[in-house]
Amino acid sequence: MKRDIYDSDHEAFRKSVREFMERMVIPNLESYAENKAFPREVWLAAGEQGLLGLGIPEEYGGSEAEDFRFAAVLGEETSKVNAALNSCWGIHSDTVVPYFVELATEEQRQRWLPGIASGEILCAIGMTEPGGGSDLAALKTTAVRDGDEWVINGSKTFITNGYSADLVLVAVKTSPEKKARGISLFAVETTLEGFSRGRKLDKVGQDESDTAELFFDNVRVTDAELIGELDHGFIHMMQWLPQERLGSAISNVAHAKQILLETIEYAKDRTAFGQQIGSFQHNKFLLAELVTQIEVAEAFVDKCVLAHTCGELSAIDAAKVKWWAAQTQSEVLDHCVQLYGGYGYMNEYRVARAWRDARVTKIWAGSNEIMKELIGRDLGF
Amino acid sequence: MKRDIYDSDHEAFRKSVREFMERMVIPNLESYAENKAFPREVWLAAGEQGLLGLGIPEEYGGSEAEDFRFAAVLGEETSKVNAALNSCWGIHSDTVVPYFVELATEEQRQRWLPGIASGEILCAIGMTEPGGGSDLAALKTTAVRDGDEWVINGSKTFITNGYSADLVLVAVKTSPEKKARGISLFAVETTLEGFSRGRKLDKVGQDESDTAELFFDNVRVTDAELIGELDHGFIHMMQWLPQERLGSAISNVAHAKQILLETIEYAKDRTAFGQQIGSFQHNKFLLAELVTQIEVAEAFVDKCVLAHTCGELSAIDAAKVKWWAAQTQSEVLDHCVQLYGGYGYMNEYRVARAWRDARVTKIWAGSNEIMKELIGRDLGF
Amino acid sequence: MKRDIYDSDHEAFRKSVREFMERMVIPNLESYAENKAFPREVWLAAGEQGLLGLGIPEEYGGSEAEDFRFAAVLGEETSKVNAALNSCWGIHSDTVVPYFVELATEEQRQRWLPGIASGEILCAIGMTEPGGGSDLAALKTTAVRDGDEWVINGSKTFITNGYSADLVLVAVKTSPEKKARGISLFAVETTLEGFSRGRKLDKVGQDESDTAELFFDNVRVTDAELIGELDHGFIHMMQWLPQERLGSAISNVAHAKQILLETIEYAKDRTAFGQQIGSFQHNKFLLAELVTQIEVAEAFVDKCVLAHTCGELSAIDAAKVKWWAAQTQSEVLDHCVQLYGGYGYMNEYRVARAWRDARVTKIWAGSNEIMKELIGRDLGF
Amino acid sequence: MKRDIYDSDHEAFRKSVREFMERMVIPNLESYAENKAFPREVWLAAGEQGLLGLGIPEEYGGSEAEDFRFAAVLGEETSKVNAALNSCWGIHSDTVVPYFVELATEEQRQRWLPGIASGEILCAIGMTEPGGGSDLAALKTTAVRDGDEWVINGSKTFITNGYSADLVLVAVKTSPEKKARGISLFAVETTLEGFSRGRKLDKVGQDESDTAELFFDNVRVTDAELIGELDHGFIHMMQWLPQERLGSAISNVAHAKQILLETIEYAKDRTAFGQQIGSFQHNKFLLAELVTQIEVAEAFVDKCVLAHTCGELSAIDAAKVKWWAAQTQSEVLDHCVQLYGGYGYMNEYRVARAWRDARVTKIWAGSNEIMKELIGRDLGF
Repeated sequence: MKRDIYDSDHEAFRKSVREFMERMVIPNLESYAENKAFPREVWLAAGEQGLLGLGIPEEYGGSEAEDFRFAAVLGEETSKVNAALNSCWGIHSDTVVPYFVELATEEQRQRWLPGIASGEILCAIGMTEPGGGSDLAALKTTAVRDGDEWVINGSKTFITNGYSADLVLVAVKTSPEKKARGISLFAVETTLEGFSRGRKLDKVGQDESDTAELFFDNVRVTDAELIGELDHGFIHMMQWLPQERLGSAISNVAHAKQILLETIEYAKDRTAFGQQIGSFQHNKFLLAELVTQIEVAEAFVDKCVLAHTCGELSAIDAAKVKWWAAQTQSEVLDHCVQLYGGYGYMNEYRVARAWRDARVTKIWAGSNEIMKELIGRDLGF
Repeated sequence: MKRDIYDSDHEAFRKSVREFMERMVIPNLESYAENKAFPREVWLAAGEQGLLGLGIPEEYGGSEAEDFRFAAVLGEETSKVNAALNSCWGIHSDTVVPYFVELATEEQRQRWLPGIASGEILCAIGMTEPGGGSDLAALKTTAVRDGDEWVINGSKTFITNGYSADLVLVAVKTSPEKKARGISLFAVETTLEGFSRGRKLDKVGQDESDTAELFFDNVRVTDAELIGELDHGFIHMMQWLPQERLGSAISNVAHAKQILLETIEYAKDRTAFGQQIGSFQHNKFLLAELVTQIEVAEAFVDKCVLAHTCGELSAIDAAKVKWWAAQTQSEVLDHCVQLYGGYGYMNEYRVARAWRDARVTKIWAGSNEIMKELIGRDLGF
Repeated sequence: MKRDIYDSDHEAFRKSVREFMERMVIPNLESYAENKAFPREVWLAAGEQGLLGLGIPEEYGGSEAEDFRFAAVLGEETSKVNAALNSCWGIHSDTVVPYFVELATEEQRQRWLPGIASGEILCAIGMTEPGGGSDLAALKTTAVRDGDEWVINGSKTFITNGYSADLVLVAVKTSPEKKARGISLFAVETTLEGFSRGRKLDKVGQDESDTAELFFDNVRVTDAELIGELDHGFIHMMQWLPQERLGSAISNVAHAKQILLETIEYAKDRTAFGQQIGSFQHNKFLLAELVTQIEVAEAFVDKCVLAHTCGELSAIDAAKVKWWAAQTQSEVLDHCVQLYGGYGYMNEYRVARAWRDARVTKIWAGSNEIMKELIGRDLGF
Repeated sequence: MKRDIYDSDHEAFRKSVREFMERMVIPNLESYAENKAFPREVWLAAGEQGLLGLGIPEEYGGSEAEDFRFAAVLGEETSKVNAALNSCWGIHSDTVVPYFVELATEEQRQRWLPGIASGEILCAIGMTEPGGGSDLAALKTTAVRDGDEWVINGSKTFITNGYSADLVLVAVKTSPEKKARGISLFAVETTLEGFSRGRKLDKVGQDESDTAELFFDNVRVTDAELIGELDHGFIHMMQWLPQERLGSAISNVAHAKQILLETIEYAKDRTAFGQQIGSFQHNKFLLAELVTQIEVAEAFVDKCVLAHTCGELSAIDAAKVKWWAAQTQSEVLDHCVQLYGGYGYMNEYRVARAWRDARVTKIWAGSNEIMKELIGRDLGF
C-alpha cells in the first residue's frame, strides 16, 4: 500500500536528503564510528543544505518548513543510513530548537538560532542525571541566585552531542522545595568557566554519537540565559517531549524497515543446503511477519506524523507510538541478525550494528515503562 | 487520535446501525446462542433497514453504497455486539454478494439479488471440504456434465449460514484434470433434490452462527446456475477473497476493541486488596499495552479500508491485515479474560464468549499460515 | 530423556489407573459433559479402587501411599483423559483431604474420612467469594457465635464439586476485625438447614465438572465442625496451598503433553497440498518448539514433585511451577488448535475442548499474577 | 529448590575454580577485552590447575575427571565471570579434546595431549566456512592426496581461538564426490607453511575471544595428522556435537542466572520516584518471571547434564537444551538491560556486555533453526 501522507514536495526533499547522505555521510561512516563522533564538517554541510534549520524561521537563518513532515522525511532518510546521526541531529534540531523558537526572547533567538541553523553552534539538552533516570522531578542540579547571576552546580549524564556541544539547554532546580514545579531551563555555553565534560561514553551501540557526562561546577549564568519562564521548566519540557518521542518513533521504524529490506535481499542472495535461505518456510513466514509488523507500525507512525503536522498529537499518542516503535524495532532487528547467521554477529555488517544501535530506543526519551505509565494514567488508573 | 477515514455520512449510518442493534439484536442474544442460529426475522429486519444490500445496486433492491466504508461501519458495529452475527451477515453480504453483482448474468441477478437484499434468500458459500482445509486446488466435489445438466456430488464443511441457507454458492471441479484451473462456481438452491445438510456443528465459539456440513448427492443444476466463467472459479474466488479478509480484519479489531473498553471499565469498578484492579501497576501497564496494540491495528485496518474503498487493496495487503488483526484479537482478548479472573471463565460474561468467538479468526478465510505463505511469496520466496 | 523420578511401583500404579480410565471413564466422557457432572458411580468406583484415598491412612479406609508420587501419577493419568476429572478428584483428594488428615480431631476423622475414601462423601472447598477473587483476607462470609453454635452466613462461588458435594470445607470470618487472622475453617455437611446451591455454572470449559455457587443462610454448626484451630484458617490454607498448586501444575503439563502427542499424530495423518502437514517447515519447527517446551516444563514439575515427596517444596517453588505450567499449557494448546485448522474449533475434537479446559488454569488456585506477587516478595520486593 | 545433581566433590571443585577466577581472571578482564584475546599466561595457569585437562587421561597429563559434571561446574563458574572465556576454554577442552582422546592414535595422543592439558598447545576447531553456515556437507576446503601427503586448500571462518591457536582440528573434503561422507579431520599445526590467519574479527560481543578467519594455502600434512577414519569426519563430528551443545547450554543458563542475580541486587539498590525500582509491581512481576524462567531452564540443563554423565544424552536432547537455553539467555538478559535503564547501554556495566555476549548463542554450534530441524526430524517429519 502506498503511504499517503507525503506529497511530491516531501518526496523531492527526500531525494535531496538522500543525495546528501550518499555524498557526505555514507563514505565516512567507518571513521565516525572510530572517532565516536560526527565531525563538525558534516554539521556545517548539513547546515548549509538547510537540514538543521527546518524548524527555524527564515529570519534567523532557518529553512522554516512549517510542516513537520519535512522533519519526518529527514528523520527517516537519516535513520536509514545511520541511527546515531539521526539521534544527534534530532536532539539538535527537533528537540532543542523548539525551546529557542517558542520560548526564547528575541535577543536569545538572534544570539543562537543562526549558529544552530548553520551548524556552528551544536546543541545538546541536559535532563537526565546520574542515578536519576526518568524521574525528572528528582533533579539534583541546582541554580542558586547570587546577585544578578545564577550559579549552577551538578551533573548530567547520557547527554547526546555532549562531548562536542557548544550550547547545552540544561534543566536545573531553581526552587528545589517546589519539586517538579521548581525546575528552570538555562542555555549554557560550553565555554563558560566551571563547565566540563567527561570522556565519550562507551556505549553498546550508536558508536558514532558522542554521548558524555557534563559537569557544572559553579557555572555562572544570568537571566539572559534563562529559557522560558522561571520555575516552568517541567511544563516546558512536557510540552516538547511529544515531538522528541515522535521523532524517535519515526527513526525506529525507518531504521528497522531499511535493515529488514536489506535482510530480505540477503535472504535471496545467500544459499544454504542448496536453496535461498529466505525460501525455507520458517524464514519465509518469519519475513512475512516482519514485513507486516513494520508496515503496521509505519501506518501508526504516519498517522501520528499527520496528527502532529496538524498540531493534534497528544502526549499520550506520542507515548503510544514511541514505545510501540521501539519494541517493533528491537524485535525486527533481532530476527534480522538471526537471518544473517554468524555474519549477523560481525560488526562489519550493518545488521549487527543496527541491532546494537536499536537497543537504546526502549530506554531513552522516556523508557517503555514510563510510556506505559503515562498511557495507563490516561486510562484513569 | 481521531480516526480520519469516516465522515459524517458514515457516522450517521453508524448511529442507525447501533439503533438497530439495540432494538433488534441485543435483547435476543441469549436465545440466538441457545438456538445456534439467528432467526429469519432478524435477517428480514436487517434487509428492510437496507443492511444486507450495501453492495447491491438499487435496481435489484439494494442500497448500493458504492463506498466500502459503509460496509466497514456495519461490520464494526455488528462485531461490537456479536462476532457471529458479523460473520453470518458478512458471508451473506460481503462475501457472496459480489459474485452475483459482478459475475452473474442479468437473469441471475434478477432471480436472486432482490431476495438477498431483503433477507428472504439467505446465502452461504461452499469452498472448504472435509479434510481439505485451505487447499482449494484439492477440491473433491465435482460437477459432471450430463446432457444439458451438471450433476454435483460431494460435500462441504464448516459452512457459515449452512444450516439455514436458501442459496449456496458452491465451488466444484468441472475439469478435475486441470486442478485449480478446473474449478467452477454454481449457485445451488437448497430446495433441490439431492441437497442435504448435517446438524449444526458444535463449535468452540460463535455459538449463534449456524455452521453446518453440506452434502450434494446427484444434485442437478444447469448453466443457468453457473456463476462466472466455466473453469474460472479459482480466479473468481481469488478476486473476492481480499474483501472477505479485510472484512474479517475489520471485525476482529472492532470486536476486541469493544471488549477491551468494557474490560477497562471492569478494571475500574472491580476492587481487590482495597484498590481498583486496573490500578495495580502490572494491570495498568498491561492495559496501556493493549490499548496501544488495538489502536495500532486499527490504524492499519483503517488504511486498508481506505485503500479498498479506492479499489487499491492488494491481495497481499489483505493477507497482512487479516493475520495481524486476528493475532491482535486473540492476544488482547486472552488478556481481557485474565483481568476478569474467574468471571472471565463464565459464559455469562461477554468477555468469556468473546474469547471463544475469537479463536476461529486465525483459522478461517485462509489461516494465518496461509496468509504468511502468500506474503512470503510476494517477497520473492 | 527418561523421566527419573518414577520407579516400577509407580509405573504399575500408573497402569492400573489407565485401566480404570479405559474401563470406567473414557466410554462415558460425552455424557459427563452433557450432564455437567461426574456421576456418583464413578466416584464410588474410584473409591473402591483406592484412587480417592491415597492421602488417607488405612485405619480410616484410605490406601495411604505415603509417597506423593502416587498422587502425581494419578493426576497425570486422569488429566491425560480429562482435565475436569482431575480437577474434581484433585479438590476432593489432594486439596481437602490433608485438612482432615492433618488438622481434624480423631472424632472428625472417623466421621468423614472413610466416606471420603470410598467416594460416599464428596468434598468441596469454599474459599473464593463473589467479587472476592484471590483476596482471601477480604472474606465476607461469617460464622457468629450463638450459644454453643456458630451461625454461618454468606456465599462462595466458583466451587468445584459444588453442586454435588456432601461436605464443604468452608472458610469464614470468625473474628472479622482480625482480618486474615480471624478466619476459621468449618466442615459443613450439605444437608444442613440453610445451605443451598446455585445452578451449575456455565463455564468456558471443563464442562464435566459441576462448579456452583454456595449459599449459607443461618447455617448452624458447632465446634465439632471446626477444622483446625479457631482463627487459624488462613495459616492452615497457606500450608496446604502449595500441594494444590503443585497438583495443578502436574495436571497442566500432563494434559498439554497428551494433547500435543495426539496433535503430532494428527500432523502425520493429515495432508494438505500433497504432504503431511507436520512436514511443512513452519509446523515442523513449531512442533519441535512445543515438544521442547513441554519437556522443559515436565523436568521442572518432576523436580518439584520429588522435592514435595521429600517434604521440601516451598510455597515459592509451588508458585513458580504453578504459573509456569499454566502458561505452558495455554501456549501449547493454542498452537495445537491451530494445527488442527477448522477441526480445532469443533468441540467433537479433543483438542478443542482441551483448549477451553486449559484457560482456567492461569486463573484458579491463585492466578498467575498472585503467583508472581508471591515470588517477587520472596526476592525481597 | 536445591539443585540435586552436584555432590560435595563437585562443590569443592567449584570453590577452587572460583578462587582461580578471582585470582587470575577477574582482575584482568578489562585488558582481555582491549586485547581481544586471553593471554597465554591465563591458559598456562589454568593448565597448571588442571582446568584444561578434565577430559584427558592422567597418563597424558590430564586430570581425567571421568564425570562430566566437573566440566559442567567449570563451565558454570567460568561463564558467571565471562562468557567468552568459557567459549575459548570450552572449544579447547570440551569440543576438541574428545577427538584426540577417543579417535587419535597413541602417537597422536602423546604428541599433543600433554600440551593441550598444560595450555602450551592451544586448540581450535575449523568447521564453518565463509558463506557456509550450518551446512557442513557443503564444505569447500579440500585435502588432496599428493604422494604420501595431503595438500589442504580452503578457508574457515568464525573460528574461536583462531588467532592464537597452535593446533587446529580442521574438517576438509577428502572425497568431495561423496559429500558429507567424504569429510575427514586433520590436526593442523599452525606453524606449517601455507597456514595463515586473518585479523581478529570485530564481533558484536564476546570481545575477549580471538575469533579469526583461517586460510589454508597448500598446507601439507600426512596421515599422521589424520584424526579418526578417513572420510568419517562427518560422523565423528556428529558424535561430539551433543557435548559441545550441552556445554553451550550450561554456559548460557549460568551466565544469564548470574547477571539476573546481579540485576536483582541492582533493583534493590537503585531507587526512582522514591522507591526501589524492583518494588514497582511491573518490575517485581518481571523479576519473578525471569527467576522462574532461569530455574526452569536450569532444571532441564541439570537433567541433561546428569544424562550425559551417564552417557545417555541423545543428540536430540542436546538440540533441545541448546536452543532452549540460548533463547532463555537472550530473553532474560534483554530484560536485565532494561532494568538498568541507561546504564544498561553502557559497556562499563556487566549487563551491557553480557547482553552483547549472549546474542551469538542462538547462532553458533548449530543455530536455533538447525536445532529445531533436528528435533522436527526426530518427531518423524
